[in-house]
Amino acid sequence: MEEYLNFAISIAEYAGSEIRKNFGSLSNVEFKSDRTPVTEVDKKINHYLIEQVSRVYPNHSVIGEEEISNNKSNYVWVCDPVDGTGMFTDGVPVSVFSLALVVDGDVQVGVVYDPHLNNMYTAIKGKGAFCNGARIHVNDKHLGDLGYRLNFEMWNNAKFDTMLIAHDMLSLVKVSEIGSVARSCMAIASGNFSCDLFPGTSHGNCDIAASALIVSEAGGRVTDFYGNSQKYDCAINGAIITNGISHDEVLSIVKKYVKK
Amino acid sequence: MEEYLNFAISIAEYAGSEIRKNFGSLSNVEFKSDRTPVTEVDKKINHYLIEQVSRVYPNHSVIGEEEISNNKSNYVWVCDPVDGTGMFTDGVPVSVFSLALVVDGDVQVGVVYDPHLNNMYTAIKGKGAFCNGARIHVNDKHLGDLGYRLNFEMWNNAKFDTMLIAHDMLSLVKVSEIGSVARSCMAIASGNFSCDLFPGTSHGNCDIAASALIVSEAGGRVTDFYGNSQKYDCAINGAIITNGISHDEVLSIVKKYVKK
Repeated sequence: MEEYLNFAISIAEYAGSEIRKNFGSLSNVEFKSDRTPVTEVDKKINHYLIEQVSRVYPNHSVIGEEEISNNKSNYVWVCDPVDGTGMFTDGVPVSVFSLALVVDGDVQVGVVYDPHLNNMYTAIKGKGAFCNGARIHVNDKHLGDLGYRLNFEMWNNAKFDTMLIAHDMLSLVKVSEIGSVARSCMAIASGNFSCDLFPGTSHGNCDIAASALIVSEAGGRVTDFYGNSQKYDCAINGAIITNGISHDEVLSIVKKYVKK
Repeated sequence: MEEYLNFAISIAEYAGSEIRKNFGSLSNVEFKSDRTPVTEVDKKINHYLIEQVSRVYPNHSVIGEEEISNNKSNYVWVCDPVDGTGMFTDGVPVSVFSLALVVDGDVQVGVVYDPHLNNMYTAIKGKGAFCNGARIHVNDKHLGDLGYRLNFEMWNNAKFDTMLIAHDMLSLVKVSEIGSVARSCMAIASGNFSCDLFPGTSHGNCDIAASALIVSEAGGRVTDFYGNSQKYDCAINGAIITNGISHDEVLSIVKKYVKK
């Protein structure tokens, strides 16, 4: 798995240089049918990944947010080339690159790269989570503790109404929506944030596959909105990402808002 | 006013270096009675401002978020030493320094400094808004246009429930809550974001005095939640900050949520 991790890091470094080079300078932004933006940078990074995988691991598949390469392999590289494209185009330095190697639905290797702060987050399943080579850990805050930050994502066509859930929790948390779920997850893995509510997207699992492993390896917990684990080579049923210790506390509030 | 602007910029440069130096490295965070964090950096910058004002303009007053110096002057320096302290302590690079010179309640000079991107936003009343010396302008998006971003702030004890208003607008906007109203306002002044809903705080007007002038000088509009202008040397009645062209569209939705 070390070899796969190094491969993922090399792609992340390429992606980071593209993100940094184009940050705040793009004039052409297109919008997809779900009204989310996409840029040449998203497409270029996604295409580069597919080229590199086909060169180095020609039997593997790629699921990228903008482009896929389906070789019917049980080894799938799941990628969000720019998580937080909206903030990328709007000049707020929170967007990150995300890449996971998923084997039979299980995330084995995860890399998230924040090119703005030059933070490379990495994990191999069972081997812990790291930022620039230093071990990272979630915090131990309970819901209601001072400084407990809940981040959430919300859009009009989402399956779960994370904003109403966050509203319900206002007396217990500090709320934010920074515009990149993967960046928020890295803040959880590093002990800064405590929870993220992610309602899922029309493009399925790309956003959080790598984050799910990194947060878990940092001591946190990741489930769907019903408290179940899930596979990361297909669409997911939303995701609740926490520091672990507060996961059941969050689930007990979330269950009021989801239908079985 | 040029002299006052240069004074404000010199304070901003000091503040920026303190913010950069301590970003992501603080171990001691205190919490105020409203559960918001405060750090030694907030207090140090605020105190430095008071020292410098008493040295250069000994008759002027200072209203800082952490410390005030009331000389009963009609010249009041209104300052938020670190707007977005929570994100500052949580390692997300969006916090800014904000300083305004308010004369008889009217903002005459405004400076907001983003030390993470080294962006110095400045305005003198009637003379336009600038970022690092280059003129900036709001965008011309209407509510519902692709890419229209609404940012909001929310806390449990707020007078206005901005989160429910944002929820109402989900089909028309992309929503975020990046954790610093002044940073969000600079994104509006620069044409990136389109609107911010700010519910006011227990410490009154400090957060947005400078932003109100900079956004206005960039072509935007700033009112309270009822559509009225307000003074910036006393507590404010929340603030709606827009690109101007969409201000009445936003107000027509907001008015469903506020009581006369």
